[in-house]
Amino acid sequence: MSFKIFVDLAMPPDALEMLQQGTKGHQLMFPQKPISSVLAEPGHDPQFAEADMAFGQPDPAAIARAGHLKWIHVSSSGITRYDNPQFRALMAGRKIAVTNSAGVYQEACAEHVFSFMLAQARNLPASLKSRAVNGSKEWHTLRGSNRTLRGQTVLILGFGDIGKRLVEMLRPFDMNVIAYRRKARGDEGVPVVTPDQLPHTLASVADHIINILPDNLESRHFFNAARFARLKPGAIFYNIGRGTTVDQDALRDALHAGRLKAAWLDVTEPEPLPEHHPLLAEPNCFITPHLAGGHLDEAKTLVGHFLKNFERFVNGQPLIDRVM
Amino acid sequence: MSFKIFVDLAMPPDALEMLQQGTKGHQLMFPQKPISSVLAEPGHDPQFAEADMAFGQPDPAAIARAGHLKWIHVSSSGITRYDNPQFRALMAGRKIAVTNSAGVYQEACAEHVFSFMLAQARNLPASLKSRAVNGSKEWHTLRGSNRTLRGQTVLILGFGDIGKRLVEMLRPFDMNVIAYRRKARGDEGVPVVTPDQLPHTLASVADHIINILPDNLESRHFFNAARFARLKPGAIFYNIGRGTTVDQDALRDALHAGRLKAAWLDVTEPEPLPEHHPLLAEPNCFITPHLAGGHLDEAKTLVGHFLKNFERFVNGQPLIDRVM
Repeated sequence: MSFKIFVDLAMPPDALEMLQQGTKGHQLMFPQKPISSVLAEPGHDPQFAEADMAFGQPDPAAIARAGHLKWIHVSSSGITRYDNPQFRALMAGRKIAVTNSAGVYQEACAEHVFSFMLAQARNLPASLKSRAVNGSKEWHTLRGSNRTLRGQTVLILGFGDIGKRLVEMLRPFDMNVIAYRRKARGDEGVPVVTPDQLPHTLASVADHIINILPDNLESRHFFNAARFARLKPGAIFYNIGRGTTVDQDALRDALHAGRLKAAWLDVTEPEPLPEHHPLLAEPNCFITPHLAGGHLDEAKTLVGHFLKNFERFVNGQPLIDRVM
Repeated sequence: MSFKIFVDLAMPPDALEMLQQGTKGHQLMFPQKPISSVLAEPGHDPQFAEADMAFGQPDPAAIARAGHLKWIHVSSSGITRYDNPQFRALMAGRKIAVTNSAGVYQEACAEHVFSFMLAQARNLPASLKSRAVNGSKEWHTLRGSNRTLRGQTVLILGFGDIGKRLVEMLRPFDMNVIAYRRKARGDEGVPVVTPDQLPHTLASVADHIINILPDNLESRHFFNAARFARLKPGAIFYNIGRGTTVDQDALRDALHAGRLKAAWLDVTEPEPLPEHHPLLAEPNCFITPHLAGGHLDEAKTLVGHFLKNFERFVNGQPLIDRVM
């Protein structure tokens, strides 16, 4: 059987070649205007109505009208534009499978947040700028500002593939790792904190607060003024999930008041922050422009991940990274 | 039996208090001019002739004249000023034990070089400066510049406590770790490369060259023009040992020619580098001013380490971190 695959993902020639090879005998359909970012708004495309499957960031409104669709493979780890009860009900009702590309970004995202943790522990932003003389006051201050990770406590919010990989990476550091979940499922491998325990955990336990929450209706401004109000002294906040999960005014206040020692963000709202945004003026706020998932030959990893799932689809096997 | 302990290490009041408590019943002797850096030249002090033991960075010439000395506990991991055949022969002949503080710096040093590796892998110096727009050319370039550590090869030169700890830290990353040693001892736990194999390893195998060589007569300019001449494309050089082990002109040439992708140095020669030193002009040379061993309450860790050994000395037990 031959499938029609709608692909609205811009990709370099080598990745395209790989996709064409891997889907021989099937029909690839490309939109007039390919998108180049997971945050861009997808356009409407008449061909889409014919598609059996979609790979990329297809428009939810177009999906609702596409009568042949059996499977959507989202080219990101976040599935914001699909993650709402209406869409989930639509997919369930029409028996459309939705998978994401979590497996593609797991390693890079975990390394990214870990690089933040170590850069903060070793105070790299200040140290790389300094030419302090050995034995000087500045030098002693810098040396004393370093903290080994050993024995500190890490709280991970949004405990999926990335969080699990991070737990593996942190294992040699003898840290206490805790996961936040609405309900413990029992497969976490680390102690779980539930919503009723969260205020205490933030106020007295967590040295490192790692936010990997996805963007959905429930997570919007999850980190609000109330949650930033009481924090363990010296706590550090990291966000590699989505910018919308943080009330940035409250974050800025927590930094400015010294309740947070530092914030390391790969995501903000909007991206990038406008030039005069108050967070940019905070000396202990460090921002990378949504790069956590990036890695060499990313498009090829994405296509490879899709093709693995495509083969499973063709053979009637269960799909990996299925989210609906 | 009461010992006279010469301490030429400047320390904050809490660490001094700890030292006094831990050596009650014994006599502490302090020099007129305490030193504040392991690289400072120690002064002569007449009291030293009476000392049974020394803690800090005592002057080798004074040691030669001190008739009562039984044990020297060096307050650093490096033992440059003592590490020569004459001094070793003197210690052996007079049965003076020499221990260092390697155990104090192991964790911080391993974390420091690991923070370098991850900062490079995630391209933090460029990424933290960028406000690239999602989907822009700059953004794609930055995303593509990231490399996950997985599967890459690390060569560690100077395979002691720090190297062993680093091997533990790298274990979750599925990297290939190799140690360089003049002779394999069999206790490395990783494959060992010997001098005859080093040129091939540098030219074709090592993605990450981690230099933790101590400073001694044999290691001076170990990394010379010949060794920097052929490197695996994309190789990265790290130095947290001693600056003297690197020919900095050759390092600069390797960076400038692109044979090295980047260099991350915690040590240089001299420290700090003078203002117009060519290495400071290399965009891919990142330098911290000898901070790798630094951590919170470092002086207390140092004193605690000394006291552990002091108790062993008093009880006639074998000393830890013994180097002569």
